[in-house]
Amino acid sequence: MSQPRILVSNDDGIFSKGIRTLVEELEKLGHVDVVAPNTQQSAVGHALTVAVPLRIERHEHNNKFFGWAVNGTPADCVKLAARQILPYKPDILVSGINHGRNTAISLVYSGTVSGATEGTMLGIPSVAVSLDDFSPEADFSAAAKFAKRIAEQVLERGLPPGVLLNVNVPALAEEEIRGIRVVPQGESYWDDRYDERVDPMERTYYWLHGDYVMVGEESDDHVLNDGFVSITPIHYRLTDEEMLLELRSWDFQDSNSSSSKSLPLDISREG
Amino acid sequence: MSQPRILVSNDDGIFSKGIRTLVEELEKLGHVDVVAPNTQQSAVGHALTVAVPLRIERHEHNNKFFGWAVNGTPADCVKLAARQILPYKPDILVSGINHGRNTAISLVYSGTVSGATEGTMLGIPSVAVSLDDFSPEADFSAAAKFAKRIAEQVLERGLPPGVLLNVNVPALAEEEIRGIRVVPQGESYWDDRYDERVDPMERTYYWLHGDYVMVGEESDDHVLNDGFVSITPIHYRLTDEEMLLELRSWDFQDSNSSSSKSLPLDISREG
Repeated sequence: MSQPRILVSNDDGIFSKGIRTLVEELEKLGHVDVVAPNTQQSAVGHALTVAVPLRIERHEHNNKFFGWAVNGTPADCVKLAARQILPYKPDILVSGINHGRNTAISLVYSGTVSGATEGTMLGIPSVAVSLDDFSPEADFSAAAKFAKRIAEQVLERGLPPGVLLNVNVPALAEEEIRGIRVVPQGESYWDDRYDERVDPMERTYYWLHGDYVMVGEESDDHVLNDGFVSITPIHYRLTDEEMLLELRSWDFQDSNSSSSKSLPLDISREG
Repeated sequence: MSQPRILVSNDDGIFSKGIRTLVEELEKLGHVDVVAPNTQQSAVGHALTVAVPLRIERHEHNNKFFGWAVNGTPADCVKLAARQILPYKPDILVSGINHGRNTAISLVYSGTVSGATEGTMLGIPSVAVSLDDFSPEADFSAAAKFAKRIAEQVLERGLPPGVLLNVNVPALAEEEIRGIRVVPQGESYWDDRYDERVDPMERTYYWLHGDYVMVGEESDDHVLNDGFVSITPIHYRLTDEEMLLELRSWDFQDSNSSSSKSLPLDISREG
């Protein structure tokens, strides 16, 4: 490939350090277009904006055009980029670099991953990249280098339809990172609670907080904690095949109701 | 089971007709608690509110207590219900009835399904129910009856950990519904575009719209179009196992960089 066309988005917003560091590094690889939210969008899940009109604005950094800022989610940004803003289909989408890990079941909450999911749905090979560091002083430089290297491989080899790569990088100096591990999505989870408080008007309100509970062994969370970059291939074939078979033996007749006879219940078993 | 405790939430909001019809029907089955968004939340994906404090308010319908309204998403509502509002763990969660189908890849956008996903994560057997009708005059009564019947079966048989049921009901009178079919999630999709318009201040804005493209054969979308209720068991094991193996043969060395020797790349192949 001569000059790959790279689309970059994120969920921390176009003003964030993570996206700027990523773009700087990816510009060594090809032509970069940035389309990203104009505000922080964390934990939006795979939201699409349907109730308000979307607007696109030029965003400058250091008096230079940096990219397009959108009043929407990462999924909106990627869809707008591909369908409206860019005159071509990007060769790859890199979403990130997120401030904080995106692992285990938290993937379903992740705006960073949802940007990559949208890319995948649009047929663009897509990679989500997150740095395991919430601090405002987080150093994204090692993560950006790994993102570039992984993007190079994706550009060379492609990804199967419907599969994206979810990458997490430990909060370590480049030379301290122990390597890359290809691992499954973990089963660790947040044991959430709500902190109940009272505001100055004496109204009760709640903040979400919790503890992270590690489960299993060789997963994204485990290798990340051990100082490795984790790569997990993600798909969205959500059908539980085992339960599909089991369900076909269930009885959906309404036993309590006198009206059951009139209800059409020729449950299909052949499908 | 004597008197099952049923949690109901949705994404159309606590004011919607779909949730009221559902609650009326499920009250024939057991004790119902309602915790639902105070505004319409469609297409929020699996969002959790972390940036603003959550508030819980009593909501009345016909001068009678109906449930708790929350300034959050369906996932927020279910988590708040289970962790904060209810003094017990519900025996089942029913999320819906949504105004409009939730099928195929659209599941990842769906607030209705994300409510059920949150329930599943919290260990509550969960069912998402949607009616294939966007019209304000939609009749939810047949869908509510099917929801009750399916909830009865779930209460009797349980669901495996991590699996929820996604139910879609056609927009037909009860006697016209041809039955229930247990089917996989489809691969149909929206071919989206943006409608570009100019506001009175001469600023450009964009509305999302598109055409639905049917793919495959015996899926949620297909049986729904044929007049059947679809039931699809959904899980969140997102690892693509085939690609996991493939990825372990990729070469993540940075070939272009002179610094490659200093980069730690002992890629694990044993995991």
